[in-house]
Formats: sequence, structure tokens, C-alpha cells
Amino acid sequence: MGDPAQIDRAADALSRLVRDIPDFPEPGVVFKDITPLLADPTGFADVVAGLASPGRDRDGQVVVDKVIGMEARGFILAAPVALALGVGFVPVRKAGKLPHATYDVAYELEYGEAVLELHQDALAPGDRVLLVDDVLATGGTARATADLVARCGATTTGFAVLMELGFLDGRAALGDVPLTALLTV
Amino acid sequence: MGDPAQIDRAADALSRLVRDIPDFPEPGVVFKDITPLLADPTGFADVVAGLASPGRDRDGQVVVDKVIGMEARGFILAAPVALALGVGFVPVRKAGKLPHATYDVAYELEYGEAVLELHQDALAPGDRVLLVDDVLATGGTARATADLVARCGATTTGFAVLMELGFLDGRAALGDVPLTALLTV
Repeated sequence: MGDPAQIDRAADALSRLVRDIPDFPEPGVVFKDITPLLADPTGFADVVAGLASPGRDRDGQVVVDKVIGMEARGFILAAPVALALGVGFVPVRKAGKLPHATYDVAYELEYGEAVLELHQDALAPGDRVLLVDDVLATGGTARATADLVARCGATTTGFAVLMELGFLDGRAALGDVPLTALLTV
Repeated sequence: MGDPAQIDRAADALSRLVRDIPDFPEPGVVFKDITPLLADPTGFADVVAGLASPGRDRDGQVVVDKVIGMEARGFILAAPVALALGVGFVPVRKAGKLPHATYDVAYELEYGEAVLELHQDALAPGDRVLLVDDVLATGGTARATADLVARCGATTTGFAVLMELGFLDGRAALGDVPLTALLTV
């Protein structure tokens, strides 16, 4: 899914502008630091265009109703993607942050366990939803978010990330949801 | 500061699309929930244009080098503002989240105390920086962030928020930094 030329430009930006930080957040883990990418306006714009591309069909028509960003780095990417597509932005947040009535789901993440929440009125039944995050690791966050989407009666039609950590096989957790990964590392 | 027509449109969107949630996060506090605004693509675009306007001079020339967003809701607003101005986005994060060498500062916020961090290499000496967040409450976050900016040898040239909670007088904590508040409540 997505426009191949846009995804190529985005992959190039990622290769140049993401830096590896060894032993963060714990020994033996190599953290992918996207802050140099975010500080580069051309690179940032290129990855936003790449992440937005699965939100359009081959004729350029927008085929999603909402874009969800997962707290916190997902917010930085998903908000511009929603604006680029001209659809609403919806945050999925950690427990206790959303002020109105929520659905919540517990899930395992790469380094521990957590709860994610979504406002119950954030999505309408039948909404087509694109999820956006920085990294696909084990897929736990994506899977949990898709569960929250389903509880609203909406459908997750795509998941777009900057980087897929291929060795963790998070893709397997996504089921039928098409994945757009701008880079696989 | 900022374009008056853009700020008027943004203020109208805020009046319509921000909802009050009583007793959140604690009894007696009325929380300003911006999620309905973010879900409205026109309203969201209007407030991004309003927040970006202090980043340009009267001739439309961009007069900032970086836009800083404060975790987490600030990310949602500041990232699109940076892209709109064509300058880099820099996150200020809560303790332990940024992987590279940081400056950090402890500060009081409306409901407690916290530590904020900024990557030491995120700003260059002399950079002009626009801070973006959703709400100006007591000004503690803004003041702490401006301190981090100064430690990099950079200058905070503006602070742009959706809403100023006038009764908390956060403006007094900002010193000489010009404030752009799209709405005062």
C-alpha cells in the first residue's frame, strides 16, 4: 500500500536521519532515535507524506475517516498525517489521561505492560481508521489499538509506521490489517 | 503577535470545539478537552495556522529556527506548526524518555511537580525558538522549557497556546517572552 515514490523518499530520510542509541532504555536494546529526523523539516515532511500515502487510493482519493496516533511519539507523526489527509486526528493515550468516557485495553509492550485508552465517542460506527506510530516492534500497541477501534464499531484499515523491527515479527500480530513500514530494520 | 484574521478563525474553532470536563483530573478542576477540536479537520487546521502565525513577521517571512512541543498534547500541535513554518520540530519530554544526552529542569505544574528534558544537541546557539502547547496555566512548563532553551544558548522568541487560563496569571511567569493565546478563558 502507499505511493512507491513517496515511500522511497521517506526511506531515504529515515536512513540518513534516525540514529541508533545503544543500551536505551535498557542494556542490550538499540533505540531508534527519531529526533534528528523531526529536526529536519524536509525529512519530516517526506515521512509524513509517506505515512499518509496508505490513506489514499490510486486516484488520490482519501479512503480513511480518522487517523489515530498512539501516545506519545505517535502523536508527532499522526497529527500531521491527519491534517495532510484532511481527516480528524484521534489520540490513543495511556491510562488516566483522557478526560471523557473511555474504552481501555491492557497489553504487553516491548519493555513491560500498560493500558491504553480511547474516548468512546472518538469514532463513529463504520469509520475507516489509519493507525500511525513511529515503530512496529512486537505489535502489542497496534493490536491493542485495533481492539479499541473495533469496540467503537469502526474498522482499522491500515497501520503506518516509520520503521518495522523485522526480527520481532510484529507484523504477525496485525492479522489482516495492511502494514505500511517506510523502512524495515 | 500573529495574524489577527487567522487568530480570529482559530478562536472561533476553539469556542465551538473545546469541551469542559468538570472534576478532571481532580475534584474542583474544569479540564479543557481539546479532542473534539482535533477530530475536526478544519478546526484543527485553523488552530495550527493561528499557532504558527507568531513564527512569521508582517511580510510572511519565517522568523524562528525551531518549534518546541511539550509532551504530550503539545506534540499534537507543535509538530504541524513546525511543518507549516518549514522549520525543525524539537520535543521537550518528561524525565527518562529522551535517549541522548539531555539538559533537565525540575518545575511545578498545575497539579504536582515534574522534570522536563531537552536533548543537548537539539538546538544550536543563537537559534530562535517558538514554544507551542495547548494550555497556559501557571506558566511553570513554559518557564522551565525556556530555561532549557537558554541552556543550549538559544532564545525563546515566542510562546503560542490554544488557551490561556487567565485566572492563573501564567503570563507573569513568562517574563519578556511574547505570548500568543488564541483564546483566554
